[in-house]
Amino acid sequence: MIPKSHPRYESLMTRELIIEGVKKGITSTQGLIAQGRGEAFDYLIGEKSKESALHAEKVAAAKLLLAKKPVISVNGNAAALVPRELIRLSELANAPLEVNLFHRTEERVDKIIRHLRTLGARNIFTKSDALIPGLEHERAKVNSEGIFSADVVLVPLEDGDRCKALVDMGKTVIAIDLNPLSRTAQCATVTIVDNITRAVPHISIFAEELKCLKMEELQEIIRDYDNKNTISLAIDEIKNNLECLSNIS
Amino acid sequence: MIPKSHPRYESLMTRELIIEGVKKGITSTQGLIAQGRGEAFDYLIGEKSKESALHAEKVAAAKLLLAKKPVISVNGNAAALVPRELIRLSELANAPLEVNLFHRTEERVDKIIRHLRTLGARNIFTKSDALIPGLEHERAKVNSEGIFSADVVLVPLEDGDRCKALVDMGKTVIAIDLNPLSRTAQCATVTIVDNITRAVPHISIFAEELKCLKMEELQEIIRDYDNKNTISLAIDEIKNNLECLSNIS
Repeated sequence: MIPKSHPRYESLMTRELIIEGVKKGITSTQGLIAQGRGEAFDYLIGEKSKESALHAEKVAAAKLLLAKKPVISVNGNAAALVPRELIRLSELANAPLEVNLFHRTEERVDKIIRHLRTLGARNIFTKSDALIPGLEHERAKVNSEGIFSADVVLVPLEDGDRCKALVDMGKTVIAIDLNPLSRTAQCATVTIVDNITRAVPHISIFAEELKCLKMEELQEIIRDYDNKNTISLAIDEIKNNLECLSNIS
Repeated sequence: MIPKSHPRYESLMTRELIIEGVKKGITSTQGLIAQGRGEAFDYLIGEKSKESALHAEKVAAAKLLLAKKPVISVNGNAAALVPRELIRLSELANAPLEVNLFHRTEERVDKIIRHLRTLGARNIFTKSDALIPGLEHERAKVNSEGIFSADVVLVPLEDGDRCKALVDMGKTVIAIDLNPLSRTAQCATVTIVDNITRAVPHISIFAEELKCLKMEELQEIIRDYDNKNTISLAIDEIKNNLECLSNIS
């Protein structure tokens, strides 16, 4: 048992959730390595949501609310870490969920769908009857009514190639990625450099707050958004943190 | 199969070795997360051994050669990633190996010992008949003739608490840690901020090169070594790399 007083309690609990996900068969072994990479970057941004991330999260909420066909993509790490939070956002933003795995097996897809349904998810795209152009077959599989035809896709923890392929299809891609230098971070329309465990609840809070706004007011929020600026602020934050951390030591 | 032409071939092959280690039961699940953290920091230092790391590796070789009782500590990740390289260094520096796990189980200790022996290791401390002062029982277990009484310990990928406890015992601790800000990096006598897959072969190359030197000449190499400087150069390298990487994007 990790005591709540532990200085890195949140990070350690998140790690336990991922290990639990592997035991349940919903997270891949490679997902553990991805979690470790995320931990390192989260450590470098100070394990807190920075102002630039909160801004991107607000823009993400506005984009989801303005979308005609928003879809939330769910992978094995997201399903282990924030299943309830994704279901809540899915309902708030009227954005169905779709399981979308990097190391895809039908067995794991089914397990994640059952896991989400057990936790109360009602709106999940479950077919894989279309292919994203430009990707190798197994990685290209999506639902024709879901990600394939969506105008806005939220991809927590997405692979770089697939993020690019979705952008190339003309979609608005909202990515959650702790590495501001990753290809996913660089090619997404809105890049949220934040831990998924903080980002998803934040987007929901913003979605609730913005829900009552008129379309023009929502458009106002996204109008001047500059994703390159968000990314460069995130990189600056890491540099500042390195400076601070090395001064403490 | 990962093609050799892949720009991140080395990193991906290293990942495969760790996953193989988990399958064999020598690497823990938590070891995969640690591998991911390492990957992130290796990416930030440019996946190359910097000059400051090479300097620390040379000093490490000199310290091992000058030691009266050097020991090389082996954990589950090290055993999966560089078993042959550790055996080679062990022979060159006349430093026996000792298995020393963070998530210790006797079963995993035995598996790693068998794994090392199969690969040709002849000099391994296998008892756990002493305790490092100041650590919780399971994490304190060491061999009385090995790490417990060693004057110089090479700890690839060590936990911060244990690194500190070894230093508190008056030992020279050589740590390999890709995060220059970690507690291990901060408290070790010699901190090698480099990937274990590059660091161990480098120390062996230096050990071979320095083996014919006189004791005074070896002492000359370690005399002016400043570990704080090594660490701060490593942090500067990450900052410079962030600058470069963000300019490319």
